[in-house]
Amino acid sequence: MPTLYGMSGSGNCYKPALLMQQLGLPFRWQEVDVVGGATREAAFLALNPNGKVPLLAFDDGRTLAESNAMLCYLADDTPLFPADRWQRAQILQWLFFEQYSHEPYIATVRYWVRYLGKGEAWADKIRDAMVRGHAAFAVMESQLRKTPFLAGTAYSIADIALYAYTHCAGDGGYRLDDYPQIEAWLRRVERQPGFVAMPGTP
Amino acid sequence: MPTLYGMSGSGNCYKPALLMQQLGLPFRWQEVDVVGGATREAAFLALNPNGKVPLLAFDDGRTLAESNAMLCYLADDTPLFPADRWQRAQILQWLFFEQYSHEPYIATVRYWVRYLGKGEAWADKIRDAMVRGHAAFAVMESQLRKTPFLAGTAYSIADIALYAYTHCAGDGGYRLDDYPQIEAWLRRVERQPGFVAMPGTP
Repeated sequence: MPTLYGMSGSGNCYKPALLMQQLGLPFRWQEVDVVGGATREAAFLALNPNGKVPLLAFDDGRTLAESNAMLCYLADDTPLFPADRWQRAQILQWLFFEQYSHEPYIATVRYWVRYLGKGEAWADKIRDAMVRGHAAFAVMESQLRKTPFLAGTAYSIADIALYAYTHCAGDGGYRLDDYPQIEAWLRRVERQPGFVAMPGTP
Repeated sequence: MPTLYGMSGSGNCYKPALLMQQLGLPFRWQEVDVVGGATREAAFLALNPNGKVPLLAFDDGRTLAESNAMLCYLADDTPLFPADRWQRAQILQWLFFEQYSHEPYIATVRYWVRYLGKGEAWADKIRDAMVRGHAAFAVMESQLRKTPFLAGTAYSIADIALYAYTHCAGDGGYRLDDYPQIEAWLRRVERQPGFVAMPGTP
C-alpha cells in the first residue's frame, strides 16, 4: 500500500488523495509539517530532493513527486485518463495550465492569506496575483461554456487537478460570482462517484 | 502539416520545434510578436484562449497549447516518451518540475533581463528568483549524478523540456560553473541525433 506524504490543507496533496479514493486504491497518509520546515529536513529531502509535498512512496522504495504526474500514473488507462492519444493531450494541456497559469496565482494567494496571514501586509502583491488568477478563471469559464468538464464530455484528472484549488479559492479572497459555469462545474465534480471533500485522507 | 505558432527566442516554443525536428515530423513555423502584444489579439485568442505561445494548430482545425503537452502528444510511444507506465511517470514528474520549479525562475529572469531590459532596475527581484532557480539546478545536478539523462539511461522529452531554458540561462545572468553534471548533460543532449539549436525552426 503506497504512502502519500502531504499537508492536509494543500490542494496539491488533495489531488492524488481524491483520485485514489475515487479509484478505490488504498493508501496511507503521512502528515508533513510543511510550514514548520519538515520538507527541508534531510530525511524528507532523501525522498524528494525538490523538498515538496505531495510525495508518493511505494512499498518497493520507488517514489514519485509532482501531484499531476501522480494523477497521470495512478489513473493511467482508467476512464479518468483514457488511452486515446488526443484525449490524453487535452487532459495534459489542462494539467500544465493548472501548474503554470492557475496554481501560482490562486493557490499562492490562499497560502499567503490563510497560512502566512499576509492578507493586509501584502495587499499590492495579492492584487497583482489576482489579475492573473482571474485570467485563469476566465479561460476555464470559456471552456466550461462549451463542455461540461474541462477536457470534454467526461470527468477526468483535468477536473481533479483544477478543482483542488478552485473550490477553495475563496480562502484567499477570490470571489467566483462572475463565473457561473465554474460554479456549476464545481457542483458537478462534487457529484462524481467516490468524491470526498478536502483533505481526502483515508 | 501542423503549424507551430511561436516566438523565435522562446525556450517553450523551441521544445516542440526541437522534438519535431528530431522525430522527422514536418511543420510550418508562424512567428508571433509576443512582446508587441499579438497573443492578446482576438485572432490569436480564438486559437488559444490562454493567450500564450507555443500553440500547435493542425490542418483539421484542432489546436493544442502548453509546450509540455505537445511533447507528450508528439512523442507518444516513441523512444522519447515510451509506453512503460513507470518510465512515463518519471518523465512527467520532470515535465511538471520544469513548469513549476524551473521555468518561473530561470526563463522568467532571462525574459526580464533580455527582453524587458530590467537587469538593473529589478536587481532585488532577480536575486530572489535566482535563489529558486539555483535550487532547481541543484535538483537536476543531483539526478544527473546518478543517471546520464533526467529520467534515467535514455534521452527523453524530459531532457528536451529542461534543456530549453537551462542551456540559455546565462542570458539572464545565471552561471552554471557549480553544476558540472548539468554542463556535461547539456553537451550530451546536443549530441543527440537530429539535434538543432534554438529556435529550431524549419
